[in-house]
Amino acid sequence: MDIKNDNTNAAGLPRTDLALEVRETFEEDNVEIQGVVLKEDYDRKKDIRVTTVIIKDKKGADAMGKPIGTYITIEAPKLGEEDESFHEPITKEIAKYIKELAGDMENREILVAGLGNREVTPDALGPQVVDNLFITRHLIKEFGHGFLEKQNTGNVSAISPGVMAQTGMETSEVLRGIIRETMPKLVIVIDALAARSIYRLNKTVQITDTGISPGSGVGNNRKALNKESLGVDVIALGVPTVVDAATIVSDTMEQFMSKQGFGDKEIHQFMSELNEETIGNMFVTPKNIDESIKRISYTLSEALNKCFA
Amino acid sequence: MDIKNDNTNAAGLPRTDLALEVRETFEEDNVEIQGVVLKEDYDRKKDIRVTTVIIKDKKGADAMGKPIGTYITIEAPKLGEEDESFHEPITKEIAKYIKELAGDMENREILVAGLGNREVTPDALGPQVVDNLFITRHLIKEFGHGFLEKQNTGNVSAISPGVMAQTGMETSEVLRGIIRETMPKLVIVIDALAARSIYRLNKTVQITDTGISPGSGVGNNRKALNKESLGVDVIALGVPTVVDAATIVSDTMEQFMSKQGFGDKEIHQFMSELNEETIGNMFVTPKNIDESIKRISYTLSEALNKCFA
Amino acid sequence: MDIKNDNTNAAGLPRTDLALEVRETFEEDNVEIQGVVLKEDYDRKKDIRVTTVIIKDKKGADAMGKPIGTYITIEAPKLGEEDESFHEPITKEIAKYIKELAGDMENREILVAGLGNREVTPDALGPQVVDNLFITRHLIKEFGHGFLEKQNTGNVSAISPGVMAQTGMETSEVLRGIIRETMPKLVIVIDALAARSIYRLNKTVQITDTGISPGSGVGNNRKALNKESLGVDVIALGVPTVVDAATIVSDTMEQFMSKQGFGDKEIHQFMSELNEETIGNMFVTPKNIDESIKRISYTLSEALNKCFA
Amino acid sequence: MDIKNDNTNAAGLPRTDLALEVRETFEEDNVEIQGVVLKEDYDRKKDIRVTTVIIKDKKGADAMGKPIGTYITIEAPKLGEEDESFHEPITKEIAKYIKELAGDMENREILVAGLGNREVTPDALGPQVVDNLFITRHLIKEFGHGFLEKQNTGNVSAISPGVMAQTGMETSEVLRGIIRETMPKLVIVIDALAARSIYRLNKTVQITDTGISPGSGVGNNRKALNKESLGVDVIALGVPTVVDAATIVSDTMEQFMSKQGFGDKEIHQFMSELNEETIGNMFVTPKNIDESIKRISYTLSEALNKCFA
Repeated sequence: MDIKNDNTNAAGLPRTDLALEVRETFEEDNVEIQGVVLKEDYDRKKDIRVTTVIIKDKKGADAMGKPIGTYITIEAPKLGEEDESFHEPITKEIAKYIKELAGDMENREILVAGLGNREVTPDALGPQVVDNLFITRHLIKEFGHGFLEKQNTGNVSAISPGVMAQTGMETSEVLRGIIRETMPKLVIVIDALAARSIYRLNKTVQITDTGISPGSGVGNNRKALNKESLGVDVIALGVPTVVDAATIVSDTMEQFMSKQGFGDKEIHQFMSELNEETIGNMFVTPKNIDESIKRISYTLSEALNKCFA
Repeated sequence: MDIKNDNTNAAGLPRTDLALEVRETFEEDNVEIQGVVLKEDYDRKKDIRVTTVIIKDKKGADAMGKPIGTYITIEAPKLGEEDESFHEPITKEIAKYIKELAGDMENREILVAGLGNREVTPDALGPQVVDNLFITRHLIKEFGHGFLEKQNTGNVSAISPGVMAQTGMETSEVLRGIIRETMPKLVIVIDALAARSIYRLNKTVQITDTGISPGSGVGNNRKALNKESLGVDVIALGVPTVVDAATIVSDTMEQFMSKQGFGDKEIHQFMSELNEETIGNMFVTPKNIDESIKRISYTLSEALNKCFA
Repeated sequence: MDIKNDNTNAAGLPRTDLALEVRETFEEDNVEIQGVVLKEDYDRKKDIRVTTVIIKDKKGADAMGKPIGTYITIEAPKLGEEDESFHEPITKEIAKYIKELAGDMENREILVAGLGNREVTPDALGPQVVDNLFITRHLIKEFGHGFLEKQNTGNVSAISPGVMAQTGMETSEVLRGIIRETMPKLVIVIDALAARSIYRLNKTVQITDTGISPGSGVGNNRKALNKESLGVDVIALGVPTVVDAATIVSDTMEQFMSKQGFGDKEIHQFMSELNEETIGNMFVTPKNIDESIKRISYTLSEALNKCFA
Repeated sequence: MDIKNDNTNAAGLPRTDLALEVRETFEEDNVEIQGVVLKEDYDRKKDIRVTTVIIKDKKGADAMGKPIGTYITIEAPKLGEEDESFHEPITKEIAKYIKELAGDMENREILVAGLGNREVTPDALGPQVVDNLFITRHLIKEFGHGFLEKQNTGNVSAISPGVMAQTGMETSEVLRGIIRETMPKLVIVIDALAARSIYRLNKTVQITDTGISPGSGVGNNRKALNKESLGVDVIALGVPTVVDAATIVSDTMEQFMSKQGFGDKEIHQFMSELNEETIGNMFVTPKNIDESIKRISYTLSEALNKCFA
């Protein structure tokens, strides 16, 4: 996540990086959205729910405040929990959906970018995923594809570029430079996300072929990490690990005010006063975030290693 | 901080580890508290405010929900900021007040305990302070006091025991055991604290001779880290780095409801519904918490090293 | 390992923490040792060799310079390598031999101590093993044994006490204190070891019921971590990750001088000149030590978790 | 350092990254080297020795096995030691010589690259230096140069690219890409080095305007980090933190064999047998390397911050 970014999106709603949650705000209002297709699938035995949101055209993109593309959300309550028996099924499920969007990865040159700040626990997801990947590009360069006693392995390189406060550079600058030089065919970016609901934290994986578009996909393509800005296919893999502090306060307030019969205008007025500087620079995260990040990053690494093998 | 603990205190108010903030809740109501003395000192040039709250007797302790003793709070807006010129004055100020409560430390056997979870950024303060201390106990044991070309240095040992989720043990059990075995004359515990106001985060140091008393000083002495439970003088050094998520929500709500003319009973009713499981396990912290923790822990280490020298 | 310790053992031989290697020095000389029993077992398919050295009496202990007890050495060339298919068999093998020495661990109170310095890569093995253990003591205390939907789980607590340069305290002081306070029935210490041969590094696990005895088991029981000093059964689990620099130099020299026809006295004379201060404070370790430590610590954690389950 | 590299240099001598040490091998033989100029300066009070080796032409470069350019070596026995009073003089000294080679840095766009593997203690120097730099590029971009209440500050960006085993990419590829994209005017690379003598470890800083040339400056410009390969001025800052294990063994052997009257041919023969695979992948480092790296990286960060201010 770019936790240094401002926290309201285009539509002025509390910020979320999950297409699923944007979709839900419409649901609440019982509105149908043109240009957006929704599919749901629930596996009761594994307790895994997969929701696919497809934004088909500009109309849908404008309504959702997210770019055109496919957003697969895997909700698995036990994702961040200590449960050995759940580890393999969820790993397989994630790998399956990554491949669904990315296509076959054997013999393909792939750069994995672990975004985020290694020093801030809920933002360390990306770097920690990269730490456990099986990196092969240099080995293939030196020994050829035969080095693994099998012919079809992914050609994997990876980088954890750090955040702007650490590097002075936009992540997009760093990645664009590396891509120009090493010419991968596919970039997979891993990032911690901000959700709107605390109930989704560490329980959800979003996979999308739209990359990452700070500022909700509108304008500022310089900072975006997508096919347009990077010149190569981009798959983004994200897990919500924080809620913006402003969101958690305003959601509670909104519910309350709405129940009390306040009108939209009054609510909006109150909210805008809330979104001042200080709370805008705060995030909310669970107290056991260290354990969740460790487990989830390990699960994502294995899912990716499975995709590449 | 024991961020795994429940987050309401004895009086049912939003939790704070700062005596100063408890005192303020009374101020708001314009109440004078028997058994509690307050002193304030503001250095305009350095922009450092020092507030001393002395809880003198059981009456004061009951009212405040904190044990009898002295609580010195140093408020310095630039504490967590990158400002070289501020580093030395604040270091000296902190050292001065530690000595005021702890007495002279030369030639005294001191155990420093860095509490908290190294893997959760805002909770890593204690371990990071310990990382930068100048440890001498083993050197004095081997070479005598003369080893430093000076006779009067503190005899310093230190431990970062980790948190219960990592060790399966109460911090008090670990410290009690080590104290029994190594017999220090003074224990200094360093801990990240929870504040009520986000405006105090990373800008405040609390120094107290009461130690640390989870659950607001009432009951449960097994978990307390104080003279009674550890059998040795205890000084606690704390910096608020988080606000409980429930607090941030309920404070906003309370203000709002109170303005809207809701009665105390209604407000209390609403609040109790808020304090459900999930939000009770969440905390709020600034997005640049890594930089603040690094700077503050470095400042506290130096203040302590100065005390011991 | 206590890498701050001096690096010659009682007998003046290059230091090794492996009973197997001490035994081999006699083999070279074709000497039979009274009071020492040797068993070997090789599984060709898995390429795992298990050697059991039993020191039966004082005579054997004196000859070996190690305390009376059983030393099981598991040699597995692929232990530190990236090989998914090998991970499970070696985990099972290690768990089997831990149980052979420690007995059944269900329903038993166990304290695991991860010795060593987390900040020095080859010495971080112990702390990293502890990081991945499933800690249950506090859960059992709160919820009873039923909390895991099964009745028979180990009651596990753990600590990574750091090294003397960090704490000012002997590891034995810290552990003795914690043991007195929490009363475990079994202590398992994990430590990185020094080997004599670079060919054993990251390929060997030593399991022993003698604990750890700095200074090769002679004298200085204050520093020892064994049943006598800790008052409770102790199992030590160690992996050689370094060779003392003096050892690697002197071994090469010794071979060379011996081939050149130098006598024992001349060789010994030359060696003693080598063992000066500077090289005595150096260690040798492989360049990819980070990857080996990560993999091996993960394997040991799983072997222990399997023992406790 | 690229500790994954092979460890003999062009001339077949034990590897060293220090021009000073290469120069000394000639001194031992009392040989004057054409095209190489030597200056020495010793400050007795501070106990700092500064040696400048200037390789003036191709002849000098061939003899030295290092590229044409200036190599400043600062030897300060207390560099890695805990001595507050020494911290400021050495910081100033290093800053002075960096500026001597790099020229004025105010208002100049500078990229600092912290090379090496953060996970291997003696190789973590570069990343740890970067961790403590004051990064300004993004601030200047957002607020202009005025943001610091002064007009002339360096425009600093930084990256710790990791090593090839972690990224699958050459460091030169990563840096070349980033440089193309962000267009700095000067690149400063920080790296841990290999010395020949254990007595130089953590006591020496080498500053050079030749950049870094793996394989001793001959051939393979693809991997080199210098003006030719990166297209921008390069200053390299290095501290020897390891000795190759083969070097430490062969140096001792060589001395011994030479004293015993063995001829060069025999010695060379013996040495070549030593340099087999296993020992070639080992390095030697002091046991308290964690403390040295922490202190030295802090000193280098401050020296650089001073240069940029």
